[in-house]
Amino acid sequence: MRLVTFARRMLDGAELQAVVLRAGILHGDRVVDIDLALAAAGLPARGGREPGGPSELIRIIGGGERALDEVQDVCDAAMTAGREGPVTHPATEVQLVAPLPRPNSLRDFLAIEEHMRGSVAAGVIQEVPDEWYRIPAHYKGNVDEIYGPDDTIPWPAFTDKLDYELEICAVIGAPGRRIAANDASEHIVGYTLYNDWSARDIQAREMSIGIGPGICKDFGSSIGPCIATPDEFDWRTAALEARVDGEVWSAGTVGTMQFSFEEIVEWTSQEQTLRPGDLLGSGTIARGCGVEIGRWINEGSVVELEAEGIGILRNQVGRKGEGPSRAVELDATFARAR
Amino acid sequence: MRLVTFARRMLDGAELQAVVLRAGILHGDRVVDIDLALAAAGLPARGGREPGGPSELIRIIGGGERALDEVQDVCDAAMTAGREGPVTHPATEVQLVAPLPRPNSLRDFLAIEEHMRGSVAAGVIQEVPDEWYRIPAHYKGNVDEIYGPDDTIPWPAFTDKLDYELEICAVIGAPGRRIAANDASEHIVGYTLYNDWSARDIQAREMSIGIGPGICKDFGSSIGPCIATPDEFDWRTAALEARVDGEVWSAGTVGTMQFSFEEIVEWTSQEQTLRPGDLLGSGTIARGCGVEIGRWINEGSVVELEAEGIGILRNQVGRKGEGPSRAVELDATFARAR
Repeated sequence: MRLVTFARRMLDGAELQAVVLRAGILHGDRVVDIDLALAAAGLPARGGREPGGPSELIRIIGGGERALDEVQDVCDAAMTAGREGPVTHPATEVQLVAPLPRPNSLRDFLAIEEHMRGSVAAGVIQEVPDEWYRIPAHYKGNVDEIYGPDDTIPWPAFTDKLDYELEICAVIGAPGRRIAANDASEHIVGYTLYNDWSARDIQAREMSIGIGPGICKDFGSSIGPCIATPDEFDWRTAALEARVDGEVWSAGTVGTMQFSFEEIVEWTSQEQTLRPGDLLGSGTIARGCGVEIGRWINEGSVVELEAEGIGILRNQVGRKGEGPSRAVELDATFARAR
Repeated sequence: MRLVTFARRMLDGAELQAVVLRAGILHGDRVVDIDLALAAAGLPARGGREPGGPSELIRIIGGGERALDEVQDVCDAAMTAGREGPVTHPATEVQLVAPLPRPNSLRDFLAIEEHMRGSVAAGVIQEVPDEWYRIPAHYKGNVDEIYGPDDTIPWPAFTDKLDYELEICAVIGAPGRRIAANDASEHIVGYTLYNDWSARDIQAREMSIGIGPGICKDFGSSIGPCIATPDEFDWRTAALEARVDGEVWSAGTVGTMQFSFEEIVEWTSQEQTLRPGDLLGSGTIARGCGVEIGRWINEGSVVELEAEGIGILRNQVGRKGEGPSRAVELDATFARAR
C-alpha cells in the first residue's frame, strides 16, 4: 500500500472555494480518498473530523496493522466498485503533497559507513568515531519546514553551498515504548524518501561547535511522494537513485546500514515513547550527496530522488534568498485540519 | 503576567469524571481560567473549542501583544469582580503542569561561556571552538517527553550519571520569519525555567559521534512553573538558583549569554518561520549542573530550579528504570485537547 496526502480543490461551479488536504492511497493510476471510502462502506472517518473536510494521514497510521488492513480492504473495494467523483481520482489530476505535512518528529541517524568515510575524504569530518560503530546516534530535524513532491526548495540567503542528501525514513505508526527490535515491525508503518537538504558552508561552521547541525538544515526537508508499506518497499535491497537535471549523480541502497531500522527503533524507544508520524532517517547513502562526489547543484536545479516501491520525489531549487514556494500553499489549508 | 497550564478536576457530585487541562494566569494567590474569564466578559474562547473543555496556552500566546493585553485586562477584571468557582481558583487547590505540555519545538543554544569553559575543565569537551564565539549553535530537544511542576523525572535504565541543568527558555508567541533582533521582543511572549536533564555517560558516547545529543536528553525535559512575560522577568539580571534536596548547588544568571535571546531569534528565523510555542534555550548557566561542580544527584533527589519572577520548578528524580510518573496523567486529557 502507498499512503499519500493529496490536495483536493473544492469548487463551487467553476470557482475555487478552498483547497483541502486529504489522506489517500495510491492504487494503480488512481488515488483513493480514505475517509470517503470508509464513509462509502458505512464506517466512521479516521483522518478528519468531518467527511468532506481536511483529513490527516498521521491520524490514520497510528492504529496499527489491523486498522491499516481495514483501510486497504475498504479502498480496494472502492476501486472494485468503480467509485468515482470524490472517492477516487485519477492520480494525474490531484497534487500530492508531503505524506506527512508536519511529521510528529524527525530524527536522522547517519547510519551508513561509506557515507561516513566519504565525509572524511571530503574533509567534512576528521575520522569515523569509534562510538559510531557501537550506537546509533541521531540529530533532530525541523518538522515545521517540510516540503513534498513538486515543491520548490528555498535556497537560503546565507549559503553558497546548497546540497541534496539521498535518504530513506522509516515512519512510525502504532506508538510504543521499550520496543524490542523483533517487535519493531509492528510499529514501522512504512518508508518514504527523504531529501535532507543541507547548506554545507554554514553546516561546517555549526558542526565545529559540536552539538550537531542547526539552521544549516532547518530551512527545509522534503519527503514523499508516499509512505510505502513494507510489502511494497524492502529497505535492505531496494534500489535508490538521485538525479540532478536528469543526470544520475547518486545510486545505491540503504541496505548496508550499520544498525537496522528495527535496531534503531529498539535503541530510541528505550526511555521514550515513539509516536505516530515519528520519522527515523537512515542517514545519507554512500556517495548520496554532492559534497561527497565533488559536484554542486545550482539555483534552478531539479533534484529527483527515486526509490523502487516508493516512486519519485522531485524538487526544484529556488533562487538564492527568494524564500519558499509550494505546489500547494499549505498554511491556510493545513491550519484548518488542526 | 504569569501564564500557566493547570489541571482542573471535573466532578459529578463527589465522583471524579475527568481531568482537563486549562490555560490560566497566576494572579497573586489565585489562578484565573483564561477562557472562562473571556466568556464572563462576553468574548469568545481562545484556548479551546468548548467553554468547559480542554484549553491550550499555545493557542493563546500566538496572538501577539495586543491579544495578550486583552487577556490580561479580562483576567484582572475577573479578579476585581471577585469571580470564584470555575473562573478563579486558589493556586493551592489546582495542580500546575508544564505551561506548554507539548511545545511546538525545543532548541537549546549553549550560549554561556563559563559553562563552556566548565565543560572543558570537566573533560566533557576539549576546547571552546572558535565558531562558538561567532554564531549561536543549537541542538533540538524532544517535545514529546515534557515534564512540569511536581512531576517525577524518570531515571533512565541506561544511565548511572543523571544530571540536572539550570537554564531559561524564551518562548515564541507571535509567529515570524526574518525577524530583526530589534523586533524580536514582539515575538518573545515570555520566559520559563528549563531543566535540561542529561544522562552524562551516554551523552559522552553520543556526542563523540559529532552530531549532538540524542537519547541522553530525549527521556525528559522539565519546564515551568509559568511563562513570565518580560515585565515580570528580566533575563539579563534575574537571579537563578538550583537546589538539590534543599541545598544550593548552582546560582547565577543567564545575563552573560554570548548572544542575547533577541539575537538568537534573528539568527534562527533567517530562513524559517518561528511559531507559537517554540522554545529557545539559553544553555546551562555557569556551574549550573552537577558535572561542572563535581557533584551527582541520586535516585529520589529533589531538584528545585528557581528564578526571580518565574517561581520554582520542583522535580523529584525517580528510581532507575522505573519510567515516568506525573503529578497529573496527561495522556488522556491532553489527547482530547487536540
